[in-house]
Amino acid sequence: MSLQMPPSHPFDDDKLREECGIFGVVGVTDAANFVALGLHALQHRGQEAGGIVSHDPVEGFNSARRFGYVRDNFTSQTLMKTLPGPLAIGHVRYSTAGSKGAAIRDVQPFFGEFSMGGAAIAHNGNITNADALRRELIERGSIFQSSSDSECIIHLMARSLQQNIPERMEDALRRVEGAFSVVAMTRTKLIGVRDPLGVRPLVLGKVGDGWCLSSETCALDIIGAEYVREIEPGEMVVISAAKGVESVRPFRPRPSKFCIFEHVYFSRPDSIIGGRSVYETRRQIGVELAKESPVEADLVCPVPDSGTPAAIGFAAESGIPFGLGITRNQYMGRTFIEPTEQIRNMGVRLKLNVNRALVQGKRVILVDDSVVRGTTSRKIKEMILDAGAAEVHFRIASPPTAWPCFYGVDTPQREKLLAATMSEEEMREHLAVDSLKFISLDGLYRAVGATEGRKADCPQYCDACFSGEYPVAPTDMIAKGFQLKAAE
Amino acid sequence: MSLQMPPSHPFDDDKLREECGIFGVVGVTDAANFVALGLHALQHRGQEAGGIVSHDPVEGFNSARRFGYVRDNFTSQTLMKTLPGPLAIGHVRYSTAGSKGAAIRDVQPFFGEFSMGGAAIAHNGNITNADALRRELIERGSIFQSSSDSECIIHLMARSLQQNIPERMEDALRRVEGAFSVVAMTRTKLIGVRDPLGVRPLVLGKVGDGWCLSSETCALDIIGAEYVREIEPGEMVVISAAKGVESVRPFRPRPSKFCIFEHVYFSRPDSIIGGRSVYETRRQIGVELAKESPVEADLVCPVPDSGTPAAIGFAAESGIPFGLGITRNQYMGRTFIEPTEQIRNMGVRLKLNVNRALVQGKRVILVDDSVVRGTTSRKIKEMILDAGAAEVHFRIASPPTAWPCFYGVDTPQREKLLAATMSEEEMREHLAVDSLKFISLDGLYRAVGATEGRKADCPQYCDACFSGEYPVAPTDMIAKGFQLKAAE
Amino acid sequence: MSLQMPPSHPFDDDKLREECGIFGVVGVTDAANFVALGLHALQHRGQEAGGIVSHDPVEGFNSARRFGYVRDNFTSQTLMKTLPGPLAIGHVRYSTAGSKGAAIRDVQPFFGEFSMGGAAIAHNGNITNADALRRELIERGSIFQSSSDSECIIHLMARSLQQNIPERMEDALRRVEGAFSVVAMTRTKLIGVRDPLGVRPLVLGKVGDGWCLSSETCALDIIGAEYVREIEPGEMVVISAAKGVESVRPFRPRPSKFCIFEHVYFSRPDSIIGGRSVYETRRQIGVELAKESPVEADLVCPVPDSGTPAAIGFAAESGIPFGLGITRNQYMGRTFIEPTEQIRNMGVRLKLNVNRALVQGKRVILVDDSVVRGTTSRKIKEMILDAGAAEVHFRIASPPTAWPCFYGVDTPQREKLLAATMSEEEMREHLAVDSLKFISLDGLYRAVGATEGRKADCPQYCDACFSGEYPVAPTDMIAKGFQLKAAE
Amino acid sequence: MSLQMPPSHPFDDDKLREECGIFGVVGVTDAANFVALGLHALQHRGQEAGGIVSHDPVEGFNSARRFGYVRDNFTSQTLMKTLPGPLAIGHVRYSTAGSKGAAIRDVQPFFGEFSMGGAAIAHNGNITNADALRRELIERGSIFQSSSDSECIIHLMARSLQQNIPERMEDALRRVEGAFSVVAMTRTKLIGVRDPLGVRPLVLGKVGDGWCLSSETCALDIIGAEYVREIEPGEMVVISAAKGVESVRPFRPRPSKFCIFEHVYFSRPDSIIGGRSVYETRRQIGVELAKESPVEADLVCPVPDSGTPAAIGFAAESGIPFGLGITRNQYMGRTFIEPTEQIRNMGVRLKLNVNRALVQGKRVILVDDSVVRGTTSRKIKEMILDAGAAEVHFRIASPPTAWPCFYGVDTPQREKLLAATMSEEEMREHLAVDSLKFISLDGLYRAVGATEGRKADCPQYCDACFSGEYPVAPTDMIAKGFQLKAAE
Repeated sequence: MSLQMPPSHPFDDDKLREECGIFGVVGVTDAANFVALGLHALQHRGQEAGGIVSHDPVEGFNSARRFGYVRDNFTSQTLMKTLPGPLAIGHVRYSTAGSKGAAIRDVQPFFGEFSMGGAAIAHNGNITNADALRRELIERGSIFQSSSDSECIIHLMARSLQQNIPERMEDALRRVEGAFSVVAMTRTKLIGVRDPLGVRPLVLGKVGDGWCLSSETCALDIIGAEYVREIEPGEMVVISAAKGVESVRPFRPRPSKFCIFEHVYFSRPDSIIGGRSVYETRRQIGVELAKESPVEADLVCPVPDSGTPAAIGFAAESGIPFGLGITRNQYMGRTFIEPTEQIRNMGVRLKLNVNRALVQGKRVILVDDSVVRGTTSRKIKEMILDAGAAEVHFRIASPPTAWPCFYGVDTPQREKLLAATMSEEEMREHLAVDSLKFISLDGLYRAVGATEGRKADCPQYCDACFSGEYPVAPTDMIAKGFQLKAAE
Repeated sequence: MSLQMPPSHPFDDDKLREECGIFGVVGVTDAANFVALGLHALQHRGQEAGGIVSHDPVEGFNSARRFGYVRDNFTSQTLMKTLPGPLAIGHVRYSTAGSKGAAIRDVQPFFGEFSMGGAAIAHNGNITNADALRRELIERGSIFQSSSDSECIIHLMARSLQQNIPERMEDALRRVEGAFSVVAMTRTKLIGVRDPLGVRPLVLGKVGDGWCLSSETCALDIIGAEYVREIEPGEMVVISAAKGVESVRPFRPRPSKFCIFEHVYFSRPDSIIGGRSVYETRRQIGVELAKESPVEADLVCPVPDSGTPAAIGFAAESGIPFGLGITRNQYMGRTFIEPTEQIRNMGVRLKLNVNRALVQGKRVILVDDSVVRGTTSRKIKEMILDAGAAEVHFRIASPPTAWPCFYGVDTPQREKLLAATMSEEEMREHLAVDSLKFISLDGLYRAVGATEGRKADCPQYCDACFSGEYPVAPTDMIAKGFQLKAAE
Repeated sequence: MSLQMPPSHPFDDDKLREECGIFGVVGVTDAANFVALGLHALQHRGQEAGGIVSHDPVEGFNSARRFGYVRDNFTSQTLMKTLPGPLAIGHVRYSTAGSKGAAIRDVQPFFGEFSMGGAAIAHNGNITNADALRRELIERGSIFQSSSDSECIIHLMARSLQQNIPERMEDALRRVEGAFSVVAMTRTKLIGVRDPLGVRPLVLGKVGDGWCLSSETCALDIIGAEYVREIEPGEMVVISAAKGVESVRPFRPRPSKFCIFEHVYFSRPDSIIGGRSVYETRRQIGVELAKESPVEADLVCPVPDSGTPAAIGFAAESGIPFGLGITRNQYMGRTFIEPTEQIRNMGVRLKLNVNRALVQGKRVILVDDSVVRGTTSRKIKEMILDAGAAEVHFRIASPPTAWPCFYGVDTPQREKLLAATMSEEEMREHLAVDSLKFISLDGLYRAVGATEGRKADCPQYCDACFSGEYPVAPTDMIAKGFQLKAAE
Repeated sequence: MSLQMPPSHPFDDDKLREECGIFGVVGVTDAANFVALGLHALQHRGQEAGGIVSHDPVEGFNSARRFGYVRDNFTSQTLMKTLPGPLAIGHVRYSTAGSKGAAIRDVQPFFGEFSMGGAAIAHNGNITNADALRRELIERGSIFQSSSDSECIIHLMARSLQQNIPERMEDALRRVEGAFSVVAMTRTKLIGVRDPLGVRPLVLGKVGDGWCLSSETCALDIIGAEYVREIEPGEMVVISAAKGVESVRPFRPRPSKFCIFEHVYFSRPDSIIGGRSVYETRRQIGVELAKESPVEADLVCPVPDSGTPAAIGFAAESGIPFGLGITRNQYMGRTFIEPTEQIRNMGVRLKLNVNRALVQGKRVILVDDSVVRGTTSRKIKEMILDAGAAEVHFRIASPPTAWPCFYGVDTPQREKLLAATMSEEEMREHLAVDSLKFISLDGLYRAVGATEGRKADCPQYCDACFSGEYPVAPTDMIAKGFQLKAAE
C-alpha cells in the first residue's frame, strides 16, 4: 500500500535517529492528558507521528493517531475529551521498520479485540525476525493492517492459547527476537516489558495514586511523577490500580546490553539512565576526549545543540575558552526555494549561522556528537573557514559509526556510513580539516561509568554500531544478504 | 473590526518583544526568494505574521501576506511563483501598535497605487503621533485599511504634492514622529530610511550584482550577501539596479540614540551592530556582572537560551563552572490541557526541565537577560529548588526594566513591570531568592563599548526602558494619560 | 473505538437510505480514474465516504480512502497518480452496519494480504449473521480493523483452505447470510458476485478493451461503457484482461428477490433495472396512483426531487396541471445558526421554498416517494398551507413503510416508522392533510412490470419494508430481540 | 496584485452569470444570523465568495469575508459570535468587474471609517465610469484596497463635504454611472438605494420589529419576513430601529429599465418581481414559444434545471408530453481527471446524463433558457442523439444573446457570443439540430406581462444583451474600444 502525505522531517539526514518513545499511565483521572504531556517530553524520540489509546469503564477503548507533533495534535480539548478514562498509553515514532511510506495505519499504539477483551500495545525497538513471523501469521490467516514490524506482537497475542492478556503477551514475546521495550494496556491493566538484553530503556514512575511507564525520566518530570526504578532487562510488570505493580520474568536470563548510543545522543540530557545523568555523561565524554586527543586552539565550539555538553567538558578539561561560534536558527526549516544564483551550503544556512566575529582568526575545536555520513560536518567546516577561522579541529563524542543498527534506530545502509569505508585519517582528508579525533570505545565506556573500560569478551553495552558485534542476530537482514563482521 | 484566528505565540509573556523585522533586495533574479530567506533569518523579530511584495516589469506588483512562520508559508513553489521579479521587500511582525486583534490586513508591507505608480513599504518601529495623524488623514478623506500605525506613512505619501515616490516618502516621514526604520520599493527602486535618532537598526548588503537592506546582519549571512555598512540615523538610501546606492538626508541632524536593548536581547547573537558582535557584547555583560556582583557558588547556569552568552562570560570571569542546569524542550508548546490533579508550574515545564542531577546540592547562579514581570523567574527558581539546589542567585544581564518602550517594542503597561513598583531588594524578596543583582546602567554601557560609561547629559543610546528618559516624546500616549518621569 | 470527525450528512433524516455503491474496472489504462468517475455517478448511493484500491504490476496495490464526496477527493492529480494500474475497484458508502461513529478504517474497499497475494473487496448490502461470524473469527485469532459487517468476508477468505482467491471468496461467501453484491480484485482479476436472492443490483459493462462492474447503469454511461447484462442472482463472475468473463455459480439456486425499493427511490431515474427504465417505472407508479386514488384538484406538485417522475405520471393520467410549487435550494445546508427569534420550519426552509404565487388558493396534490417518520411531510404541508393553498392532498409513490430493512438500507427502528403504529387514516390525521393515499402493493408491482400484481405465495421482489416478509432471516437482529411478523 | 487560490466555480461557462446578491437587516437580535440565511437564499447570484459586516453598540463594527459558499462559512457558532449586534449587511458575489484574480480584499462589503463614524456598503451592479473615477480619486490621494469598481463609492463618500453618512452616500452616488443596487449601513442605520433606471432588483421586507433589504423575495421567505414593496428606481431608503423607513430621491427621475434577464434566468423561480411570479413568467415564455414556433414531436424535455418552467409551459400549450429526458447529477463536479482513453463530452457527462430509455426513437424538443457560446447546447444535442433520439429541436426561452452586459452580469466578449456572429439559421447549422427557435423579443415582453409587446421607442426593460440598446453609455468600455451598435 502506498505513500500518502509523508510529513516532512525537521531533522538532518546526517544523524542516527531514535525511532520511538513510549509512555503509559494508570490510576489517574483523564490519563490521556498525562500521556500527551509525557509524549511531548519524549518528542525527540520520534517527530513524525503520535498516537494515544485510552480506556474508560463506560466509554470503552478510544484512540487517536496523528501525523505531526504532540503539541499540535494532542492539545485540543475536543480531541482529548474523546480519550476519557483512568488508563492510557501512547507512542511517538520517527518511522517504522516497514515500508518507507508514511501511513496513519502504521502509527501505534496497535489495538486488537480478543475474546477476553481488547488490548493495545506500543513498541520501542525492532523485531529482527519480523519478516519470518509475518509470513507465518499470514499463512495461518492473519490480516495485517500495517507495514510495521510491531504488528506481529498483537497477532501473536490474538492466536495465543493462553486465557488472559498478560499471559498471551508473554506467549507472543517469546516468539519475538530483537530489541523491544513495550508498553501495553488491557481494560484494567498497564503492562511494561523489556527484552532480555534490555536494549531500549523503560522506567517506572509514581504519579499521585497511579503509576506510569516511560522511555525516559524526563517525561516523569513533566507530569511531576516520582522516579521509582528502571524496568529490568527481561522483566514484565503488570500494573493495576487495585493490585499495584506485579513483576514477572517471562524470559531466560541473559547479560544486559543497554544501547550505549542512548547516552551519546538519543536520550535527553536531563534524563537519568542507570542512575547517571545523561548530561554529566556527555560532559565526561568531553573530558575523556580532551585527555585522549588534546590540541592547541583558541576556542572550543559545540556543534549545536547536541555537542554542547561534551564541548563544555572538553573546554573545562583543556582550559581552552568555550564559546558559541555557531548559532542555531530556532525557526528551522529546510524546504526553502533556492534563489537562482546558487547559495553555497544553503541547506545548512537555514539552520545554522557562524558567529563570524567570534571565530575570525581563531583555531577552533568543533565538538560534535557523531559523524554518520559526514555531509553536515563538511558544510559546517566550510562555513567556519569562510568566516575566517585559522584552523578547524573536529572532536567527536562517539567512536566511528561503522555499522548499522537493527534494534530500533534509523541508520543508513552500511555503505553510506563514512566510517564503514574510511579510516580516521581518510575521513580527516575527506572532511579537509586540520585534525579529526573520535573518542575511543574504551574512553566512551569510562565516560558512562565503566571505569575499567569495555570488557571485550562480554561488552557491558550494545555497541554494535561501533563494533559490529550484534548481541542478537539480525535474522531478517541476514536473509536479505547483510554480511556480519567476519570473526577475528 | 474584529479579531479572527489570532495565532498562538510561542514566546513567553514575560519578555520584551521586538515587533518587526524588515528586508528588501533589488537587482537579483527572483528577489522574493531572497526576501523569504532573509525574513526566515529575522523570524526572532516577529513570529506572528509575514508578508512579501515583489515587482516584475511584466507581472507588475504582487504580494502575499500570511499568519505564521516564514518557513511554513513562503517555501511553497506555488506561492513563490506568484511573486516574480528582481525587486522585493518583506516584513515579519509580532503585532502592531493597533488593535489587539490579529487581522491579515494589518500584515505589512502596505501597498498604495499612486498616479505615478505603486509603492510598498515595510516599517520597523513605532510612530508616536500616529493617532493624531490618522485623525487628520480621515478628516481629509483617507480610508484606512488596517489598525496599524505604519499605514499613516502610505496615506501621507498618497497625499504628498511631490512628483516622485522617494520625494513623497521624504515628505511623509517629515510628518512622522517616533522610531522607524523603513524599507520601501517602487517599480524600480529599493528605498531604506532610518529615523533621525536611528533607534531601530538597518544595514546595507551587496548580493551578487544587487543590493539588499536588512534589520540585522544575520540575514545577510543566510543569503551569502556581503555586509557593506549601516544605514545612518536620518539617512535615506535610494537603490536601483541602474544607479546603485544614492544617499539623501531628509531630516535635521540629531544625536544618535540606538536602542540599547537590541544588544541585550532583541538582536541575534550572530549579528553585528556598530561593528560589535552581539554575542561578544552579551558575553562581556556577563563579565561586567561578575565584576559588579560576585557571589560564591558552585555552578553558573544560563536561563535558556538568551541568558547563555552572559552566563559564559560570568563563568569565565568568576572561575565558577558553567553548566546547563536547565534543558529547553525544543518542541515547545503551551496549550496542553492540564490534567485534573494539578501539576505545579506546568506552563514552565512544557518548555524547560531542570537537570536535577546537575543542580542537586549546589549553589546555583542563574543568569537571565532581563526581568520584566518576574513571573517566569519565580517559577524557574521554584523548579531549581525543587530539584535540590542549595542556593539560588539571580544575575540579570540588563538593568531593571522600569519603563515601557514606545518605539516598536511590545512592553507591558508600566504598572505590570516589576521594577516600576519595587526596589531591587523588594524584587529579591518577591522572587524569594538568595540574591538578585542587575547589571548597572554604566556597566551595560561599558559592555557595549562605551568605555567611559553612560553620558548622563546626553546618553549615547536610547535606554528609556531603564532610565525613563524618552528621546522622542510619546505624543499619543501622553494624550492618553501616560505620565513621564518627573524632572529631577 | 471512537468517533472522530463524523462528516455531516446532506440528506434528510426522513428517508430510507441506500448504504453503498460499488464499481470496478479491469483492462484499461489508469483504471482508478474510471472508478472515480463511476463512483461519482453512484454518489447518491452513499455520500459519507469513498475509497479506491488499484493494482499495478510494478507499483503493486495502492489505496486511498476519504470522507466526503468523490468530486472533492478523487479529482486531484496528485492523489490519482498514487493509484496507478489497469485494475481498480471502489466504494461509496453512507454508513456501515457497525458502530454509529465514522472512522476512516470503516471505509471500504477492505484489503487483505494472503499467502498467494493480496485481495480487496467492496460490498453493497448487509450480512445478517455478521455478529456471530465476528465472534467466531475473533475466537480463532482474527483481529478486526473496523466495525463493519463487511470485514467478515475478508477474514473468512484469509482462513479459507482453498488455494486461489476466487475459490477462497466462494468459500467465504457460503458462510455469509444476508444481501450482498460484491466487487473484488486480486492482482489480475476483477470479481463480481450477487447473493442467491439477488437483493442488491450489479451490472456488467464493456469499456474499450476492458470490463467494468457497477451497482447501476448510470455509472456505465458516465464512462461511455456499453451495458452488457446484469450479474444474475447467485452468480460470480471472474474477469481478467486475458480470459474475459468467466461465470460460476457458488450457491444453491433460489428464487430471485430483488429490492423493490431500488425502483421506488434508491436507484437513479436514468438507470435501467431488469430492462426497465427507472424513470418510466416511477412515472407509471404515478399513473397507477392516479387510477387508484383520484382526487379533484388544481395542481399536481412534486416534492422535489424524488417525487417528480410520479407527479408527472399522476398529472398526465389525471389531467390536472403539473407545476413546480416547491423550489429546492441547490446550495443545501442545514447547520445554520437559528436567529434568536424563532423561525418556523427553518430546517426545511434551508432546502425548500414554496412558490407562493403558484399554490395560492389552489387545491394541491403533493406527490412524494415515501413516508418514513412523517416529520418532513408535516413541515411541507405547513409551508404549503402558509403560502395560501386551499387543500393539500398527499399521494405517496410507495406503500406504507412499516418494517425496517436489514439488507443494506438505513432504516429507523420499527417504532419510529409512522406506518408501523398508525393506520392510513391515523396518518392522515397526524399529518393533518385533506387526504393521504399510498399506492397499493399490487399497484406497485404492476408499475414495475408485474402485470399480474404481487404473487402472495412467492413475491417476485423483496418487499419486506412494506410487507414484513423477510426472505432471509435477520439472525443477528432476532438475537437482539427483533420480533418478526406473526404468521397469519 | 495577484491571484491566489482562485476557487473553482460550479457553474458552466456557457451561461450569463449574475454577479451579486445583497442583503441587510436592522432591528433584530443577532442580525448577522439573518444575513447569513438571506445570503444562503441568494447564493445563486454569486457562488465565489461572501461577506458580512455587523455593528453592535458595544463591540462596534465587525466583519468576516470568505471564499466559498455561505453554508460552509457562515454557519459556525465561533464565527457568528464574532459578528454581534442588531444591524448587519452582507454580499455574495461571483466576481468583480476588476481584475480576473480572486483576492479576499475584493470581497464585499467594503468598510470605511469616516470622521463621523464607520460605514459599510455592498453593491450589486456595475459602475460604468469606474476607471475614470478611480483615476480621479488616486490623483487626489485615495488608496484603493481592491480591484473592485464598487470601491469607488466608499472613497467618494470619504471625500464628500456632507456632514452625515446618508448625505455623503447621495453625494457619492450622483457621481456614479451605471447600474447599482446598494445596501449600506452606519452604526445605526440600514440604507438601500437603486440607480435611477432600477436595473438591478432590491426589495424591502419586515421581520419581527425590524426591517430587511434583499435582492430577491426568496430571501425574505427563508427568514420568515413579510414582503413590503420594491425599492423604486432612483429611491434611497434610510432605515433605523427608531424612525423606521424614510425615503428620499437623490436622482433626477428617468424611465425605469429593469433587467429583463432577471426574469429569464438570474432570479430564483420562487421569487416575485414586480408582482409577478418568476416561475409563472418562465412558464408563460414556454407558452409563447409553443405558439410562435410549434413543431411536431413526441417529447418536451427541459435542459435542467433552468429550462424546466418554460418546458412545462411549452408542453401544456402544445399538448406534447413533458418528460425528464436529461438527469442532472446533484453532486456536480468538473475537475475529474480524464482517463487516458478519451471519453466524449466528459465535461457534460459529469453533470448530465441522458435518460436513454425515454428518448430512444423519439422526436425530442429541448427547452433551454438561453444560448450564449453554444458549446453546451452542442454537447447536449450529441448526447441526446447518441441515446437514439430521432430528431432534436431546440426551443430557447430568450432571444438571441448578441451583446455583452455592462451592468453587473458576467458575459463573454461580444465575439464569443454565438448570436453576435451568426444568424438563427447559421446557429442551427452550427448546432446541427433539426430546428432551433428563439422566443421573439415581443414574445418575451408579452410573457413578462407587457401585453402590448416591446415599445421600440422606449423599451420597458433593459434588454441590451438582446437589442444592443444600452440605456446607460458604457463609458469605460467605450474608452477601451467597444463599438456600440450603429444607429439605424
